[in-house]
Amino acid sequence: MLVVEARDVTAFADECEVLVVGLGAAGAAATLEAAAAGADVLALERASAGGGTSALSGGVLYLGGGTPLQKACGFDDSPEAMFDYLMASCGPRPDADKLRLYCQGSVDHYHWLVDQGVPFKPVFYPHYSGEPPTDDGLVYSGTEDAWPFDRIAKPAPRGHVPQIPGQAGGLLMQKLLAAVAASRARVRSDTRCLALVRGASGRIEGALVRSEGRDEALRARRGVVLCTGGFINDEAMLRLHAPLLARCKFRVGAEGDDGSGIRMGIAAGGMARNLAMGSISLPVTPPKAMLKGLLVNGQGQRFLNEDAYMGRLGEYALLHQEGRAFWIHDDSTFVRPDVPRAVAAVGETLEELERELAMPDGSLQASVALYNRHAARGEDPVFHKRAKWVVPLERPPFAALDCTVDGSLYAAFTLGGLHTSPDGAVLAADGVPVPGLFAAGRASACLAAPGYASGLSLGDGTFFGRRAGRRASLETATDLRI
Amino acid sequence: MLVVEARDVTAFADECEVLVVGLGAAGAAATLEAAAAGADVLALERASAGGGTSALSGGVLYLGGGTPLQKACGFDDSPEAMFDYLMASCGPRPDADKLRLYCQGSVDHYHWLVDQGVPFKPVFYPHYSGEPPTDDGLVYSGTEDAWPFDRIAKPAPRGHVPQIPGQAGGLLMQKLLAAVAASRARVRSDTRCLALVRGASGRIEGALVRSEGRDEALRARRGVVLCTGGFINDEAMLRLHAPLLARCKFRVGAEGDDGSGIRMGIAAGGMARNLAMGSISLPVTPPKAMLKGLLVNGQGQRFLNEDAYMGRLGEYALLHQEGRAFWIHDDSTFVRPDVPRAVAAVGETLEELERELAMPDGSLQASVALYNRHAARGEDPVFHKRAKWVVPLERPPFAALDCTVDGSLYAAFTLGGLHTSPDGAVLAADGVPVPGLFAAGRASACLAAPGYASGLSLGDGTFFGRRAGRRASLETATDLRI
Repeated sequence: MLVVEARDVTAFADECEVLVVGLGAAGAAATLEAAAAGADVLALERASAGGGTSALSGGVLYLGGGTPLQKACGFDDSPEAMFDYLMASCGPRPDADKLRLYCQGSVDHYHWLVDQGVPFKPVFYPHYSGEPPTDDGLVYSGTEDAWPFDRIAKPAPRGHVPQIPGQAGGLLMQKLLAAVAASRARVRSDTRCLALVRGASGRIEGALVRSEGRDEALRARRGVVLCTGGFINDEAMLRLHAPLLARCKFRVGAEGDDGSGIRMGIAAGGMARNLAMGSISLPVTPPKAMLKGLLVNGQGQRFLNEDAYMGRLGEYALLHQEGRAFWIHDDSTFVRPDVPRAVAAVGETLEELERELAMPDGSLQASVALYNRHAARGEDPVFHKRAKWVVPLERPPFAALDCTVDGSLYAAFTLGGLHTSPDGAVLAADGVPVPGLFAAGRASACLAAPGYASGLSLGDGTFFGRRAGRRASLETATDLRI
Repeated sequence: MLVVEARDVTAFADECEVLVVGLGAAGAAATLEAAAAGADVLALERASAGGGTSALSGGVLYLGGGTPLQKACGFDDSPEAMFDYLMASCGPRPDADKLRLYCQGSVDHYHWLVDQGVPFKPVFYPHYSGEPPTDDGLVYSGTEDAWPFDRIAKPAPRGHVPQIPGQAGGLLMQKLLAAVAASRARVRSDTRCLALVRGASGRIEGALVRSEGRDEALRARRGVVLCTGGFINDEAMLRLHAPLLARCKFRVGAEGDDGSGIRMGIAAGGMARNLAMGSISLPVTPPKAMLKGLLVNGQGQRFLNEDAYMGRLGEYALLHQEGRAFWIHDDSTFVRPDVPRAVAAVGETLEELERELAMPDGSLQASVALYNRHAARGEDPVFHKRAKWVVPLERPPFAALDCTVDGSLYAAFTLGGLHTSPDGAVLAADGVPVPGLFAAGRASACLAAPGYASGLSLGDGTFFGRRAGRRASLETATDLRI
């Protein structure tokens, strides 16, 4: 049972005003804001300490619109440019209302993060898009500066990374959890939420939890905020809703990403959205010199500009090309990628490479010939790769690196989840909130579906987590009962 | 409110054992089987008479495994071949349990349809795949006889079409509704279901309905079966869940396909599945001579074998190529398609055609040159079109027919819906049935997601509709109250 009726609950072991389930980035943000609003907050964490997937992540937060960090690094950005980019990139029909709030509030949100003690070093890291290996604070983490988005909105790097080499997610959560510890909120770890408790009126009024082998009910007088993460680690949900993600070798997520909160929200009458969608990364850089190569499908055809962000590469390769893809180099462009990729074939001629890859005779040759013809002038009119990466591939031998989903590294996590209002209310199928129920982070549907940019999950999780916590604290309280 | 609590219902105006909501093909099948099992059945229809989208459809039923109709037309088929085809074609991870039942039970189901008075003329229609313009009974309605499926399972036509030219869906529903009228079941038309009624135990015990401007509650002592259709005609759900389908010019469905039953099922705690998925048809044949042309994307690249079924063409063009596609002919292969398609460009050379279509210089030329080189030997090793449609495109002038989603006819309907057990029980997110609630037809998720073959909706709707009606009639009844 994912929902139990309050009349079947004999006693509540504890009570609070706002019950936050899950203490990753979204849960910490919800906890902090609900507590700051004066609510009696109880935050539950199933592990022995908070952090969740956020703590294991690269720590990138997608922020912009002209943050102090962007300015310090010499980049102009505006909420409008950020909004235009995200509207164009976040799938076929993004939630414009949420995106507008997110972009307009991004500078404020940056200040809030700094106020919680999260440090950002005002140095731009140019050598790679995504998580930097250094403690630099700003990176590109999407396809802002490549086709077609560079023609839609003025590019700016928006990946904001806490200042520590390689463990920025851990630092982010250390700071947020310290702020939670310093707040009025209470935290119970080693406590797993099993079910929601529904009152006679249909309102969610608490949760059934298990800790130390004992089940007990907790009462939430204003609301429950589900911040339990996605479902990349639940095989059954993945097979049912996102079978293509199940093919990716690297599943990005802590053990807790088993969809428990999404299932409870659905059982309570909430509507889920975009459950098939995922972030699908195909990492080929660093080094960026890799971008002189060509990404082709099983028919030897190119299918997008190779300098798109790794999230876009993976999405196109898996969703549109059945996960059959190879990265083609000639001798002069060949570099070894930092993330190891097997060499799928080597040939003295492209014809030989084709045969090795079991591609149709002439197919890869035709693609490379067309590319080379334009590349001789430094142009790529077919897929619009930036000129600096466009050189003819002519010098033998030729090599193909394995970029197939079955043979190489694709990193995936889920983007679908509960459909929420901009204030984090879990919505029923008629758009009306399920009374007393809120969600944030990857338990709720991501802003991108697909079209992910790194940092959107920590970004929307903390941003809308704060809003959900604040809103839950304003719900009319049920009577005190204990 | 999509769910009302029984304690808030002052009186039930009527009661029955099994309440069927919606009297299209799935609802009629559920009604007939529940009544045959001895249950007191009440079927609701919001229109003035039953039929729904099924009656407006082409009437194709996907059946096989060696039906008398297949045998009379000289085709061998087996449940195994049918299963292998559907497992390979119905999306990345079809429901094997349901497909197995469907294939093993298909010959029996054919007999049941004949017993309800549905006539099938034992003549195979070879000139077109999909709904025949004649009264012939058997057609291909999927990609059984083309690559890659012809290598996976022995092809057989499985589109079974009731005997009447052009209105087979109307005939099917006329026969099924006549059978309903002759049964013990009661029918209430002009009655719209507004909400489900949930008992104190959480079980669905009835529905709130509106007829002639008056709201009343109906009690269902054994179960409610939602057969309300898909949601292609609900703009809000379409934008939220299936925005790409919203781009298709022709939305296939009656007014009732507004997702009402799916929303009620979700509100009752049921889990929906594959809501982004649709059947997306790009009709280019008849005549089949069209297949000598080439389907290319906005970069002038081919992307599948042109002799795939129209549902596969549309799916690939919209989902993988952003709905930018053109059908290329030379002078010797040019024919006018029966479904009008605008000529997007004409050129004395392929170079001129490229320019007219704003394709990159050399791109279409490279694709056609590669195709022609192999076509000269009657082969298509790149995408495996069958040899009889493979001829070089060499004689000017050249023409491109508009196959873009924004400029031409794509026909779409939704395939996502409530997740159900093989017996039609609506399942919660933990896989446990929502007590008292069943669904069939397009209110439930289709067997295909995507990878649709025509006839699967009338096929799975009637097949699993029967199972749902039977199963609902076996539920333990709540006490008589009236």
